[in-house]
Amino acid sequence: MTDCIFCKIIAGNIPCAKIYEDDATLAFLDIGPCSDGHTLVIPKKHYETLDQCDPETMAAVGETLTNVALALVNALDIHGYNVVCNNGSQAGQEVPHLHFHIIPCKGNQKCVKLASQGQYAPGQMENIRKTIADALAR
Amino acid sequence: MTDCIFCKIIAGNIPCAKIYEDDATLAFLDIGPCSDGHTLVIPKKHYETLDQCDPETMAAVGETLTNVALALVNALDIHGYNVVCNNGSQAGQEVPHLHFHIIPCKGNQKCVKLASQGQYAPGQMENIRKTIADALAR
Repeated sequence: MTDCIFCKIIAGNIPCAKIYEDDATLAFLDIGPCSDGHTLVIPKKHYETLDQCDPETMAAVGETLTNVALALVNALDIHGYNVVCNNGSQAGQEVPHLHFHIIPCKGNQKCVKLASQGQYAPGQMENIRKTIADALAR
Repeated sequence: MTDCIFCKIIAGNIPCAKIYEDDATLAFLDIGPCSDGHTLVIPKKHYETLDQCDPETMAAVGETLTNVALALVNALDIHGYNVVCNNGSQAGQEVPHLHFHIIPCKGNQKCVKLASQGQYAPGQMENIRKTIADALAR
């Protein structure tokens, strides 16, 4: 995509602090880090969101995620880390090119907060399960 | 792992609201959902965190993530979704078996919040980049 900032980084038209690159994926430091070492892992092919990404490309992204996470643990004095992928502007996605954040924790710093957990009404969980499972089977 | 709740679910010793299963991965509804349809995707082999997971297994997890995300989008009336994987208790990991949350957004509900973004001091970004890239190359 010609107007996508991540595609421009992949093409080498915008510089990045590159951590790793292979045929299908690229990893580089986020320029606005939530914590030191905050890294982005992206597929080179342009997909806006995870649901649009082909499974083969996501397999490659998965491999890069585990390799980069291990490098972060080995390289930095961190106490855990969060992996986050926001899909859609409502979910906080700022660049419309699929990307996974790997955000190191240091000390007591908490970089990612999830909403409080609720519970399903009787029967609701099974209805939702069936709806999703049926959609997956189609 | 005999004392791991997710391993017990995989073995069929504890029930779950199953969305999808294949040789390497399992997807099921979180019993304490941040939002309706909150799904967990896990590898069947026991790994505590992403950095400990072998790349081949994470490739399979990546494929399942994209397939389940597409099913969620097709099945539910959602406005984006977040994927989150917490690694280490400091990062908010509650079950020590690698798992990815897929958390749908509905309406204006925001289920995942990232810490505010900072910036690197001059030279700091390149130092961190080199440290991580060197660890990855080892």
